[in-house]
Amino acid sequence: MKAISGGVCAAKGFTASGVHCGIRKNRTKRDVALIFSERRAAAAACYTQNLVKGAPIYVTKKNIADGYAQAMICNSGNANTCNANGIEIAEETCALLGAELGIPASDVIVASTGVIGQPMSIEPFKVGIPALHAALGAGSKDAAEGIMTTDTRMKEVAFSFEVGGVECKIGAIAKGSGMIHPNMATMLIFITTDCAISPAMLQAALSEDVKSSFNMISVDGDTSTNDMVSIMANGLAGNAEITAPGADFDAFCEALAAITHTLCPLIARDGEGATRLVTCTVRGAKTQKDAVILSKSVICSSLVKAAMFGADANCGRIMCAMGYSGAELDVTKADVSYISKAGEIMVCRDGNGLVFDEDLAKAILMEEEITVAVQLQDGDYEATAWGCDLTYDYVKINGDYRT
Amino acid sequence: MKAISGGVCAAKGFTASGVHCGIRKNRTKRDVALIFSERRAAAAACYTQNLVKGAPIYVTKKNIADGYAQAMICNSGNANTCNANGIEIAEETCALLGAELGIPASDVIVASTGVIGQPMSIEPFKVGIPALHAALGAGSKDAAEGIMTTDTRMKEVAFSFEVGGVECKIGAIAKGSGMIHPNMATMLIFITTDCAISPAMLQAALSEDVKSSFNMISVDGDTSTNDMVSIMANGLAGNAEITAPGADFDAFCEALAAITHTLCPLIARDGEGATRLVTCTVRGAKTQKDAVILSKSVICSSLVKAAMFGADANCGRIMCAMGYSGAELDVTKADVSYISKAGEIMVCRDGNGLVFDEDLAKAILMEEEITVAVQLQDGDYEATAWGCDLTYDYVKINGDYRT
Repeated sequence: MKAISGGVCAAKGFTASGVHCGIRKNRTKRDVALIFSERRAAAAACYTQNLVKGAPIYVTKKNIADGYAQAMICNSGNANTCNANGIEIAEETCALLGAELGIPASDVIVASTGVIGQPMSIEPFKVGIPALHAALGAGSKDAAEGIMTTDTRMKEVAFSFEVGGVECKIGAIAKGSGMIHPNMATMLIFITTDCAISPAMLQAALSEDVKSSFNMISVDGDTSTNDMVSIMANGLAGNAEITAPGADFDAFCEALAAITHTLCPLIARDGEGATRLVTCTVRGAKTQKDAVILSKSVICSSLVKAAMFGADANCGRIMCAMGYSGAELDVTKADVSYISKAGEIMVCRDGNGLVFDEDLAKAILMEEEITVAVQLQDGDYEATAWGCDLTYDYVKINGDYRT
Repeated sequence: MKAISGGVCAAKGFTASGVHCGIRKNRTKRDVALIFSERRAAAAACYTQNLVKGAPIYVTKKNIADGYAQAMICNSGNANTCNANGIEIAEETCALLGAELGIPASDVIVASTGVIGQPMSIEPFKVGIPALHAALGAGSKDAAEGIMTTDTRMKEVAFSFEVGGVECKIGAIAKGSGMIHPNMATMLIFITTDCAISPAMLQAALSEDVKSSFNMISVDGDTSTNDMVSIMANGLAGNAEITAPGADFDAFCEALAAITHTLCPLIARDGEGATRLVTCTVRGAKTQKDAVILSKSVICSSLVKAAMFGADANCGRIMCAMGYSGAELDVTKADVSYISKAGEIMVCRDGNGLVFDEDLAKAILMEEEITVAVQLQDGDYEATAWGCDLTYDYVKINGDYRT
């Protein structure tokens, strides 16, 4: 497997574009993105578990129920959620795009991100869709910009890999900044691949992958109404279609994991206002479920997050967050260390705080990427979760998001 | 029932004091508090459900297992949690205090609050305990100061009430500022009453009360390791001892609720860095459990809290927080309004955002006490939860708590 350039356009047969269509007031910011496959592709997606769902979630779910899609469209600036005419808008978007591209409206994956509960009009799409079509070929970066909200960094990634001796490619763009605490799906991630794989196996691969990737990120504990990760696989690489578990499916899953596990820290690192990526690894847990719950509880704790912002090696907050997580935990066996480029320091052994070198701890925590490493010495399971620090800027960004 | 002065010394036979004993470096801040009953009192408590518990929790639990206590001692500045010698310190504290006051060590309720995982010494208590004894009579306010950590306001309250025609009094002091997300117990609350009530009925009253009082507060979603609410009832009021449910027990529970429901908004309002008290009332829920989960989810949401700080009437975040709460919810029937001294405005009807008067909404949300009123129109149950906004100062306080 090899990292390559090209994002969602790396795989054969995919083109993309992003334009400004007027949903956002700022005319210099692209606010709608299109990804198109020259051939109808197997499609799969995972969605938010929030009971309040964006209208596009319902429409996409219906459209890919048959396992196929050919285009993805996504706007930023308005989530099209808690809108009386939301379903209508999402369906009309698919109809307009289908007509423009000469494909069925039911082969469109539609998504929205932005403010919830704001009236939305179809008018900007009437301008934007022909412009998106005309701009196809502009590439992955324009599309990546079109889906950004408060994101400060563009997120795109691609890999090449082999399936049965045939070179395949897989790429993705992502947006995610706040309201991030995925549950069985996450944020907005669009993945494309030219690997030939059946819709059922594609969904199986994606559903399994999100458990250890996007579902292990949290920025603020708020599970968005519009979370979605979707993938199109158009088969143009020419490999024998993957229709069952086996070596080819494993190779595909490995490539998918390369994409998603590259995106996870990028998304967490770009959490609203974040200055630090905080990764928590929990090892030696009694069960997989315990490892997952414990690692997520640490990166979700407001007190841990604020301590990370202040580079304060407060091990009590790590212990506290594990203690209330609901997971099984033998407190008297837990070790906690902080690790970064600047070194490694143990701050808690067998559940008790250690006297440690405060200067070294400070130096370790001043780095931009910090790992909180927990060793429970109580079993064979481990998990990794990604989060960020809690900063003044998170409060600033979210104290005044709509204006 | 009547609000009175005197805090934990309002009830007959209770005296209190607070001194500086050296646990904190700041010599002007009292760091240990004592409450003493001239007669051995019925005692009850509820404790944190965090698996990581402060050593004093274990010792207090053991000491009041027989249903009685005569003194409460609490230090601030060190939580005595995740300390190898924690139990030893807590037990020696009780032994020293028992010897000083001439009571059994096992009649002492002991508590600690402050930094977790810091070494702790018994030495400050050797100085502090005689000083506390000598200062008894100084009153409730000194004790209230002795238990404060990052609290900005002293919290004490007292009421008089009648049981079977006899006047009784009940009072309390509380500390609570961060790491507040009680689960079956909360923060540190010390309640005293001269009402005669059996230990079993006292525990029953307290356990029932916390469900709708302290367990409905959250400052930051972090359930502390040292949460405890405890009560001593010394019977000096002279009423016939309450030993069973009935009118007398109901009168006592009502007085207890007056104490706890007065303290809840005080604690939430004084959340670390808070500028606003945010109360969420959920009405018309299908079950009591749903009402509780929904109201707590709203006040716990970082995005709702940041919006409240920015006085931003973002109804989507309220809907979003209810949607991911795990409670049952018919999204299409939910109305959301904001209420404060400045007025009332509905921002969401039947699950859809409304176009509303932004100036009025801003004026309402600029007040210091805001209610988010949710009407679900789906049943007969309701609940109230108390929280606060998320501010720069929360981040500041917790980015650098230990130094």
